[in-house]
Amino acid sequence: VSELAAVAEGCAALAETHRDTPMAARTLLQQAVPTTFGLKAAGWLVAVLDARDDLVAVLEGGLAAQLGGAAGNLAALGADALEVVRLYAFELGLAEPLLPWHTERQRVARLGAALDRAAGALAKIGLDVALLSQTEVAEVAESSPGGSSTMPQKRNPVGSTLARACARQVRSAALLLSSSLEQEHERAIGAWHAEWSALSSALAYTGGAAAAIHGVVDGLAVDASRMRANLEQGGGLALSEQAVFALAPAVGRQAATALVARAVARSRASGRTLADELDHDPALPIERQTLARALDIEAALGPARALVDRALSRYRASLDDTA
Amino acid sequence: VSELAAVAEGCAALAETHRDTPMAARTLLQQAVPTTFGLKAAGWLVAVLDARDDLVAVLEGGLAAQLGGAAGNLAALGADALEVVRLYAFELGLAEPLLPWHTERQRVARLGAALDRAAGALAKIGLDVALLSQTEVAEVAESSPGGSSTMPQKRNPVGSTLARACARQVRSAALLLSSSLEQEHERAIGAWHAEWSALSSALAYTGGAAAAIHGVVDGLAVDASRMRANLEQGGGLALSEQAVFALAPAVGRQAATALVARAVARSRASGRTLADELDHDPALPIERQTLARALDIEAALGPARALVDRALSRYRASLDDTA
Amino acid sequence: VSELAAVAEGCAALAETHRDTPMAARTLLQQAVPTTFGLKAAGWLVAVLDARDDLVAVLEGGLAAQLGGAAGNLAALGADALEVVRLYAFELGLAEPLLPWHTERQRVARLGAALDRAAGALAKIGLDVALLSQTEVAEVAESSPGGSSTMPQKRNPVGSTLARACARQVRSAALLLSSSLEQEHERAIGAWHAEWSALSSALAYTGGAAAAIHGVVDGLAVDASRMRANLEQGGGLALSEQAVFALAPAVGRQAATALVARAVARSRASGRTLADELDHDPALPIERQTLARALDIEAALGPARALVDRALSRYRASLDDTA
Amino acid sequence: VSELAAVAEGCAALAETHRDTPMAARTLLQQAVPTTFGLKAAGWLVAVLDARDDLVAVLEGGLAAQLGGAAGNLAALGADALEVVRLYAFELGLAEPLLPWHTERQRVARLGAALDRAAGALAKIGLDVALLSQTEVAEVAESSPGGSSTMPQKRNPVGSTLARACARQVRSAALLLSSSLEQEHERAIGAWHAEWSALSSALAYTGGAAAAIHGVVDGLAVDASRMRANLEQGGGLALSEQAVFALAPAVGRQAATALVARAVARSRASGRTLADELDHDPALPIERQTLARALDIEAALGPARALVDRALSRYRASLDDTA
Repeated sequence: VSELAAVAEGCAALAETHRDTPMAARTLLQQAVPTTFGLKAAGWLVAVLDARDDLVAVLEGGLAAQLGGAAGNLAALGADALEVVRLYAFELGLAEPLLPWHTERQRVARLGAALDRAAGALAKIGLDVALLSQTEVAEVAESSPGGSSTMPQKRNPVGSTLARACARQVRSAALLLSSSLEQEHERAIGAWHAEWSALSSALAYTGGAAAAIHGVVDGLAVDASRMRANLEQGGGLALSEQAVFALAPAVGRQAATALVARAVARSRASGRTLADELDHDPALPIERQTLARALDIEAALGPARALVDRALSRYRASLDDTA
Repeated sequence: VSELAAVAEGCAALAETHRDTPMAARTLLQQAVPTTFGLKAAGWLVAVLDARDDLVAVLEGGLAAQLGGAAGNLAALGADALEVVRLYAFELGLAEPLLPWHTERQRVARLGAALDRAAGALAKIGLDVALLSQTEVAEVAESSPGGSSTMPQKRNPVGSTLARACARQVRSAALLLSSSLEQEHERAIGAWHAEWSALSSALAYTGGAAAAIHGVVDGLAVDASRMRANLEQGGGLALSEQAVFALAPAVGRQAATALVARAVARSRASGRTLADELDHDPALPIERQTLARALDIEAALGPARALVDRALSRYRASLDDTA
Repeated sequence: VSELAAVAEGCAALAETHRDTPMAARTLLQQAVPTTFGLKAAGWLVAVLDARDDLVAVLEGGLAAQLGGAAGNLAALGADALEVVRLYAFELGLAEPLLPWHTERQRVARLGAALDRAAGALAKIGLDVALLSQTEVAEVAESSPGGSSTMPQKRNPVGSTLARACARQVRSAALLLSSSLEQEHERAIGAWHAEWSALSSALAYTGGAAAAIHGVVDGLAVDASRMRANLEQGGGLALSEQAVFALAPAVGRQAATALVARAVARSRASGRTLADELDHDPALPIERQTLARALDIEAALGPARALVDRALSRYRASLDDTA
Repeated sequence: VSELAAVAEGCAALAETHRDTPMAARTLLQQAVPTTFGLKAAGWLVAVLDARDDLVAVLEGGLAAQLGGAAGNLAALGADALEVVRLYAFELGLAEPLLPWHTERQRVARLGAALDRAAGALAKIGLDVALLSQTEVAEVAESSPGGSSTMPQKRNPVGSTLARACARQVRSAALLLSSSLEQEHERAIGAWHAEWSALSSALAYTGGAAAAIHGVVDGLAVDASRMRANLEQGGGLALSEQAVFALAPAVGRQAATALVARAVARSRASGRTLADELDHDPALPIERQTLARALDIEAALGPARALVDRALSRYRASLDDTA
């Protein structure tokens, strides 16, 4: 949990620093529209905060002392059994359970699932960082990339890779824990015995993923000029939605889309920018100045800044909660 | 969720009615010590309440409106984008999300996991009922057992069977949802597209499991005399722990265990009850009357009744919450 | 694999010894019709042989030397690269791969799945043994049952329990391996790194399950008289299908089923056997002798013996293959 | 299976056509060394052939007629039971099973796992194609990319995306099938009932993935000049391993690596190519001509062509087998 807080801090710092750094949003791995790196980091941040809140809730409310005698009816503890359990839980600093929970494993499955979601949030960061680190994209780089024994040029995103590998282990462990909800009578034939290595594995690998991503987000090298260059590469086609919206009031959505699609095709053939192609289109139904304003990257960012601020507010509030 | 409430009601009724019905607690499918059927039903009840609370929390806090434009930055919605999202969420009766959540899938995974735990709680009831319905155990019977086309004597626990089958489907679907936390950038290549059939399948099969177990617990035929007979069968060996505890103050735990173990062996050979064998043991270190009191089944139940009342209190409190 | 052979040997011995030991076949945990313990053990045997054949096939054909340079094109090995790989594979006693397989992980997933099926076959034996070991069924007992620290009477099916617990670990590991088939380009970001602990875990836990079940089937105590007693308990209702088939030629299937169903109901109420109830039914449409012959347990066993012999023949053939 | 053959045909055509098309091999998503697109397609081909062989083996040897009466002992079929089963299997065109297999589910789990591996092989192709289709990489494009309702420039890799989504469904279904190996006695309480929807889902979604990837590989637009451009971008650093190997004979591996690493760093700073930087290094310990030969991309391809031919030979042999 404290590693998750460190990851959140790193994401918050990236979101704040890059609140105004434009980059391409990518859907299905294709450039779609402009966004900011700050908003991307804010998305990571919110997922980590969500996962951390869940995990804290499970750890606080969820774990409970377990003492029930052989079969969960506390008979072996004698007349003061319930009081014994209360004191036992108090000594361990755990919640007092309503009933002994030999085969009521909701707590364990819930913890496994919360760890799984935390690891998933971390792995999503790792996946994005690895994709942004690709040789051809090169928008970010881990601060301690991994080398290769034979290839001196390699800067491998090893923290991201490690986090993804850990998350896979957590997922398998969480599956085992959820499939162990079906336990026979007052002690299961196998399901209970399989839980413990899975639970410790889920805890350890979630910690491993968090430590790895902590290393990734802390000191992540962000190349803002490369982000803008990638966005403008190939004629700035990621502004085509923006162009459609600018033309639609004049000629309707359908005609605007067709007009922009033709300009996109010409831009791909000619190598000139989408803005140029539209600018030179004799059929352009709006003022060139209006078009130019619409095709400005800043204009295309919409409320990205406000969204980042929302995420940062929540982050700061979470710090106050903890303090 | 309403089906889960109906299941909880059925479990609560069983717990209340059978608060004082002794039966064998079974660990690793072996008779262990006496318990009550009420306590077993209370265990089912608490698991269902736990699962329902989780599910309600996820459904209330978790689902949020999703509107973000192509890539989640709301740019396409123009200047009033955030206000549009607020009103959109209000219209749909959903929470307003902090950020668009195209690839922040914690909500979906959390719902899948909560459904999985609910289905697991239901499947545990089904498993216990199927085990108690075995021809050789015959302590309970579903009210509408399934017949066979060729075997007129069959009374199959079909509701329990169906619930277990449904829970397996939910588990597979929840796994898919949790493995879909890793989504590329602002829209995934596949993970997002796989979510929806899994989510609808998880919802449908959890509903199926709940309906099946509702039918199982409502009007479950409970054979209290058979429960007692099974407990007393084979010499009442399930009282051996009780015997050890009765003898231990006189001769120490180790000697008591050895003495009872010998009586258990004699009982298995002779067919006489454990109580008889101990009673006739010249080495018996305590008064026969003390032993007899200790080997009373009622005495062996410990605080089972108090535990059932705890579970029922929570159930009643949950009704008040809902009302 | 050699542990699987030992398990197969144990199953074959049980099938042979108990070729003619009648017991109840149970469907949905209800007594259905008579079968033999030999046929049940033959079913275990065939599953273990199937799993072993698969595993041997994967191990023989499947594993291959892996040597490909950084990215699988063997360029780093110079002009004689293919010859180097051939000799390298020969030295290791592994197959020579058609291509380097950095991210062609069919081999690994196939091995994981074969281990999973082997563990599943073993867990099925463990499940059946644990069910047959129940206090109320008591038809078999492990030779080294587990005790309890406080309950001297306990004879826990610990080998079966352990095998089931191991199988759950194997299943999780195999899932991880199959989900690692999707690897990015020539070296994955995480999927490859997660494979190795999963593969070693799958190998170790399958071995653990095999060792546990080896201990279970070797020297399993089989109580043939209890098997017959359970089959005859409650009026021998497991012969009702047999009764329907005996009566059907005389009065048709539907009338025969109705007639037997009524006798089943009377038997449940009166405590007399199904045979008695039918015998005293004035509407009995066939000779009493014919009925008696039909209701003989031996007659109800059908070709169980021949099926056991088939399984044993296959087992013996498998020994010859190996030798 | 026939869709898999079509996919194999498409991969074989790509491997053959692009046997000599250089591209960057990528490990951890970083450019590593030169390879050919033909070798990448050959890797896809071999995985698909492996998966198809497995699936054919399972379908031929694995499925068997199932007829066993209520509990698998064939008693209900009378004296000629075994002969009836033989004829029944013959009529259905299925194998005659050694034993009835009510709860011996190896066949079903094996089929599920083989489908899972086939879907995994297809999803790997989809993943590679989606990565190569990225706006910034742009080395391939699906012939029928998906558009967007608002972004006229989008060319989404929808076939690849669909295949990955299908593979996730197959994985969940295969997990359910393998976890259904543990079935109680002669008919399970739930595990059997859950199998059938999972099996039909695994079959359908594997078919869906195959159809999608068939569409992807057939007519995949391959941009060979872009592949070479990407390989040469950023100073041709993917040749650094090649450079180390060229220098090592003269100064030893360690010194060669250090020398190349310095040249890599200079190249990153200056924007000049690695070849230039090495060429101008006064410490260059070998002839410039030797270096130039070593840094030729063709020289760096190693036995890629021979490996492609191996894969194609296997493909052609598989056609002969089928014919």
